[in-house]
Amino acid sequence: MTSFRLVKTCNGARAGELLTPHGVVPTPVFLPVASQGVVKTLTPEEVKELGIEMVLANTYHLYLRPGIGVIERVGGLHKFMGWEGAILTDSGGYQIFSLARLRQVGDDGVIFRSHIDGSEHHITPELIIQFQESLGADIIMALDECPAYDDGFEKVKQATERTHRWAERCLKAKKRRDQALYAIVQGGVFPELRRQSAEYLTSLGFLGYAIGGLSLGEPKKVTLAMVEETAVLLPEDKPRYLMGVGSPEDIVEAVARGCDIFDSALPTRVARNGALFTWGGRQNIRNAVFSRMEQPIVADCDCYTCRNFSAAYLHHLFTCEELLAYRLATIHNLSFITNLMNKIRSAILDGTFVAFKDSFLKNYQPTDEQIRLSQKQRWLKSRNLVVD
Amino acid sequence: MTSFRLVKTCNGARAGELLTPHGVVPTPVFLPVASQGVVKTLTPEEVKELGIEMVLANTYHLYLRPGIGVIERVGGLHKFMGWEGAILTDSGGYQIFSLARLRQVGDDGVIFRSHIDGSEHHITPELIIQFQESLGADIIMALDECPAYDDGFEKVKQATERTHRWAERCLKAKKRRDQALYAIVQGGVFPELRRQSAEYLTSLGFLGYAIGGLSLGEPKKVTLAMVEETAVLLPEDKPRYLMGVGSPEDIVEAVARGCDIFDSALPTRVARNGALFTWGGRQNIRNAVFSRMEQPIVADCDCYTCRNFSAAYLHHLFTCEELLAYRLATIHNLSFITNLMNKIRSAILDGTFVAFKDSFLKNYQPTDEQIRLSQKQRWLKSRNLVVD
Repeated sequence: MTSFRLVKTCNGARAGELLTPHGVVPTPVFLPVASQGVVKTLTPEEVKELGIEMVLANTYHLYLRPGIGVIERVGGLHKFMGWEGAILTDSGGYQIFSLARLRQVGDDGVIFRSHIDGSEHHITPELIIQFQESLGADIIMALDECPAYDDGFEKVKQATERTHRWAERCLKAKKRRDQALYAIVQGGVFPELRRQSAEYLTSLGFLGYAIGGLSLGEPKKVTLAMVEETAVLLPEDKPRYLMGVGSPEDIVEAVARGCDIFDSALPTRVARNGALFTWGGRQNIRNAVFSRMEQPIVADCDCYTCRNFSAAYLHHLFTCEELLAYRLATIHNLSFITNLMNKIRSAILDGTFVAFKDSFLKNYQPTDEQIRLSQKQRWLKSRNLVVD
Repeated sequence: MTSFRLVKTCNGARAGELLTPHGVVPTPVFLPVASQGVVKTLTPEEVKELGIEMVLANTYHLYLRPGIGVIERVGGLHKFMGWEGAILTDSGGYQIFSLARLRQVGDDGVIFRSHIDGSEHHITPELIIQFQESLGADIIMALDECPAYDDGFEKVKQATERTHRWAERCLKAKKRRDQALYAIVQGGVFPELRRQSAEYLTSLGFLGYAIGGLSLGEPKKVTLAMVEETAVLLPEDKPRYLMGVGSPEDIVEAVARGCDIFDSALPTRVARNGALFTWGGRQNIRNAVFSRMEQPIVADCDCYTCRNFSAAYLHHLFTCEELLAYRLATIHNLSFITNLMNKIRSAILDGTFVAFKDSFLKNYQPTDEQIRLSQKQRWLKSRNLVVD
């Protein structure tokens, strides 16, 4: 059974440990996204060599392809994807409300059409738990209704209350004792709803709490304010999981506000676009300045990519659209994030987190608002589908 | 300096060794194609772990991107691509006559437009040697004019004679003593021209001889007849390199006719399309029959892919178009070909090659003529560009 141990706090930042059936995971931790049962471009060995102890897979994606039954027959998700470390499966709430075409949302559950082939599916909180028990992850998530960041108060209130009822049903439906079930706090950008959600869900006694429905296009200040508002209401002895946040600067800010677990497709997705993390901010390897650079993109980086290849070679692979390019960039970005998490944890243990945070944020040039806007546009576009 | 040692013959099949500045390469050998300085989808470590000792890179591709100067500045091709094994660079003759848009072919050289950006380039035999000396491969190739398989006698005769004059100029232009220069025998499907070409080029005394201009769409019988016709005319103490041949069945047939070196994009290209080699022939992993198969695609295969993943997982990755799919399939196919070459060599050394060949060809279902036709169509399509 996955449990959590808080090791040390430092001005609100927390260092801890998740004790899972597949190993100990030091926190704060970033989970690379393996939505479809693979961290895009990487083998399980490569993920392990990066020092990564836990990944996130997605119930919605795996339910549609290859189907829960196929994975169960092969011996569960760990065996299917050849991953011996820990796994957290997201319930798919976010994906159902963003990727799928909604047909109907009611208290019973949700009817939606697959974003792949348009087939119709009826999902309930009980089914989502059953699916996640078949997959066999170490941490599983309750089904939530995820409103858009710009939905009004009443709409968000209804979604939040439904999330509460669904969380209670998930808790009741759960049978396996070796998995930890986490609830997802909703409430949009309304402090009052966030507070109600945190209070209600913690009263049910989950083994961990996620903060959902953020980083969806709202201004960064609002994201952090909501995190701050919510995190303090969660029990100190339980892990706090901020969903969908993965840029280096956001992780550092959220750790400062007491979050322990993070996941996001951002580091791997931007890698495949050629954006590589450096301690000064992102650099785009496609830029002509790198075409003749004999040194690696980050001179003192100890990742496989930087140890073995010049920036010129990486630039060449991206120019030629060679598939190896996307892998080498993914390795670099995940190595960067893993190093960042290690530095954060050491600083918390040393009691120097505040100095580390200030120094990091002073040097790290955040990505401009354009990226966040494109996130918002994707979200709005997906919401336009919710018409039939 | 790369030299060749013939170790044993068995009914025309030959086992030998290429002694290169970057290691000993046992022959018969198949060279995976790294046209742009990368075996598609793989790191140099993965290529090495497959037991591969030598790869082929392409002067035409590297000249256009990233440019010979960039690679020279980084320290040569081995260093640029992080490959410590041996390299053979093709001169680009075939690519210029198939991929590029020809402007003018004369005795001096060839003027063509890049297939990437349409830019105009003037290439001579001397320049091609200079480029290959800058790249620094262990074996380099003379510039040849490669006619289409259905060109008439006169046209092929002219191309063959020009290839001879260019080969002589390449030999004179060569300065580096640590590289071995091979000539390319042309002559199309005309035994008389093949004979003339082999005799003329061997009279010049190259360190190895390639058989070029085959497997371009002509019937397989014709390919093998031309190989047979040509190989016997080449000196026994020099390696014979059959260019562009890489299907398992064709390799076995050509080894039987005395060829030592092979290269082709086929094993890696069909892998990315989901076609996996088995001892019974190719299997397409996208086929629904594999969607629930718990076993690997080849039960007793010792490649990384088959050791670690079910056919169901590989099928899932292909279905989801996950980039890891193309890598895992590439690893399997190159492992298959490497195993095949090892079995061939052992059989030659044991004096049992004929029995091995008969047994292999009896079990291995060759791919139908459709694949070869599509090769022909690509070739004809590319020739249509040769109009301006």
